[in-house]
Amino acid sequence: MDQIKGGVTAAKGFQAAGVAAGIKYQDRRDMALLYSEIPCAVAGTFTTNIVKAAPVKWDQRVVYETKQAQAVIVNAGIANACTGQAGMEYCRKAAKKAGEVLNVPKDQVLVASTGVIGMQLPIGRICAGIDVLAGALTADWAGGHAAAQAIMTTDTRPKEAAVTVELGGRTVTVGGMCKGSGMIHPNMCTMLSFVTTDAAITQELLQEALCTDVEDTYNMVSVDGDTSTNDTCLLLANGMAENPLIAEKNEDYRTFCEALHCVNETLAKMMAGDGEGATALFEVKVIGAESKEQAKLLSKSVVSSSLTKAAICGHDANWGRILCAMGYSGARFDPERVDLFFESAAGKIRILKDGVAVDYSEEEAAKILSEPAVTAIADIKMGSFEAMAWGCDLTCDYVKINADYRS
Amino acid sequence: MDQIKGGVTAAKGFQAAGVAAGIKYQDRRDMALLYSEIPCAVAGTFTTNIVKAAPVKWDQRVVYETKQAQAVIVNAGIANACTGQAGMEYCRKAAKKAGEVLNVPKDQVLVASTGVIGMQLPIGRICAGIDVLAGALTADWAGGHAAAQAIMTTDTRPKEAAVTVELGGRTVTVGGMCKGSGMIHPNMCTMLSFVTTDAAITQELLQEALCTDVEDTYNMVSVDGDTSTNDTCLLLANGMAENPLIAEKNEDYRTFCEALHCVNETLAKMMAGDGEGATALFEVKVIGAESKEQAKLLSKSVVSSSLTKAAICGHDANWGRILCAMGYSGARFDPERVDLFFESAAGKIRILKDGVAVDYSEEEAAKILSEPAVTAIADIKMGSFEAMAWGCDLTCDYVKINADYRS
Repeated sequence: MDQIKGGVTAAKGFQAAGVAAGIKYQDRRDMALLYSEIPCAVAGTFTTNIVKAAPVKWDQRVVYETKQAQAVIVNAGIANACTGQAGMEYCRKAAKKAGEVLNVPKDQVLVASTGVIGMQLPIGRICAGIDVLAGALTADWAGGHAAAQAIMTTDTRPKEAAVTVELGGRTVTVGGMCKGSGMIHPNMCTMLSFVTTDAAITQELLQEALCTDVEDTYNMVSVDGDTSTNDTCLLLANGMAENPLIAEKNEDYRTFCEALHCVNETLAKMMAGDGEGATALFEVKVIGAESKEQAKLLSKSVVSSSLTKAAICGHDANWGRILCAMGYSGARFDPERVDLFFESAAGKIRILKDGVAVDYSEEEAAKILSEPAVTAIADIKMGSFEAMAWGCDLTCDYVKINADYRS
Repeated sequence: MDQIKGGVTAAKGFQAAGVAAGIKYQDRRDMALLYSEIPCAVAGTFTTNIVKAAPVKWDQRVVYETKQAQAVIVNAGIANACTGQAGMEYCRKAAKKAGEVLNVPKDQVLVASTGVIGMQLPIGRICAGIDVLAGALTADWAGGHAAAQAIMTTDTRPKEAAVTVELGGRTVTVGGMCKGSGMIHPNMCTMLSFVTTDAAITQELLQEALCTDVEDTYNMVSVDGDTSTNDTCLLLANGMAENPLIAEKNEDYRTFCEALHCVNETLAKMMAGDGEGATALFEVKVIGAESKEQAKLLSKSVVSSSLTKAAICGHDANWGRILCAMGYSGARFDPERVDLFFESAAGKIRILKDGVAVDYSEEEAAKILSEPAVTAIADIKMGSFEAMAWGCDLTCDYVKINADYRS
């Protein structure tokens, strides 16, 4: 498997564009279009929040009923959530407009929105944006990059990843982009993530591969514990790599899953590290677990703890908060057997042995915790399972961003 | 029922003191002693965190086995959590010392600690503190007040409450104090709360009254979602009011429960309003619920949402975040039937009708949300149950306090 430059246009036959449509932001890209030259099998996972945005409901119908798609329209600035019947109507109008311009049935056009809840979309500007986007579509790297910029809200940088693998003698590419900075605690999938591939694979296996993988990637990210109303992850496969169709769980399926995992994990970590106001990516790895479920519960509890995240912001090796967060996770373990380490590019240090602090150097620990990516590793010595979760530090900027987000 | 001035020394026969023992803080009170002239029936509820501080384990033995107590030793600054065998030994030594000085069996001395996790207690200073405290005990209001000051950590003000009720022609008093500012998301009880009463009541009913009431009071508070290792709520009853012994669930029991509830709810709200860095008490009331459980899930989810709390900090009527937090609470409801209001001393405003925003004045909403105590009321129109939860806004100061708490 090779990591390559690019995002949603890395795979064969995919085109993209991003434009400034003036939806809510001024003078920045805020609408994206993703298009495949031929129809794709489509898989999707969506928020578990009972309050679902209109585009989530629209896409669920496409993924679960049509099971095929050729285009995705995305806007940033307004979430089209809690917008009642009018909101659903905007989805229909946007899909219809894109369908006409691209010559695609409207029930094969996916839509996604992110931004403020409760505001109605300016449908005129959305439709005008679609016209401009259709004219700007390109299979170039630049098209995917413009799209990745256009879907940002409080994100500070676009998030893209792509890999290639060999399947049946053909090079298959999986590439993706995502956005997500606040209101991030995905349950079933992330805020907005779009992954494309030229692999030939049945829709059933595509959906299964995605559902399985989001559990270990996007669903292990938490920025602030708030599960969004708009969480959507879409995976489109157009088969243009001409590999032998993956129709069963064979070696090719496993290779495809590995490629998908690499892209999803990379995007998930980018999202965590770019959490609102964050200065550091905070990774928590629990090892020596009895089961994967146990390791996941523990790691996600630590990465979600406000107190632990504030300590990471202060480069403070406040291990008591980590043990505390493990303690209320709901998972069973023996606190008096836990070993704890901190690790980063600056080194690795042991903090706890069998639940009690060793005589470590606070200075060295602070140095390790001052890197832009830090990892806490907890060994609970009960078995051989492990899991990782990703988050970020909690800073004043998170509060500032969210105290007056709407203004 | 009358609310009166005072705290743990309001009820007959209780004495208290607070002194500066130099445990970790300098130049401020950091140790408290609470004493009853005669032995008390004792009830307690404790943290559900698997990682339990040594004093929690000590007190559980007293409450579940001895079921009787006469004194409580409390220190602030060091939590005596994750301290292994040494930590348990300190509890034993502190209880023994207090028992000797006060002429009380050591298994009738409760201990409680709050502060940094992982540090060992300076047992010499603890014992010296006990000597000074025993000499300073007083039944005066001032003794209870000094104790309430001494148990503070990042709290900005002491928290006390007391009420009187008539039972069988006698005046019965219930009074209490608590502390709690960070690491507050009690599950079974709050960080540290001590309630005293001169009511005559059996230990069984005392425990039942406490267990039932913490569910609707301390357990409905969240400052930061972190369930502490030290959460402890103790209730001591010495019978000195000489009311007819409450030994069954009669009218007197119900009156006693009302008095207890008033003290607990008052203390719980004080704790929420004094959350770390908070500028406002944030109360969430869910009405029109199918069941109390549903109303509790919904209200606690909103009060725990970082994004909602940041919006309250910015006096921003960001109702989308409230609906979003209700949506991921785990409770079922119809988002399209929800009515939402904000209320404070500055007035009341309707924001949502049937899940869609009404044409409200953002200016008026901001004015209402600028008060030191604000309430969000969500009517889900499914039944007649309701619940309240309490929290606070999320501010930069919360981050600052916790980024370098240990230094």
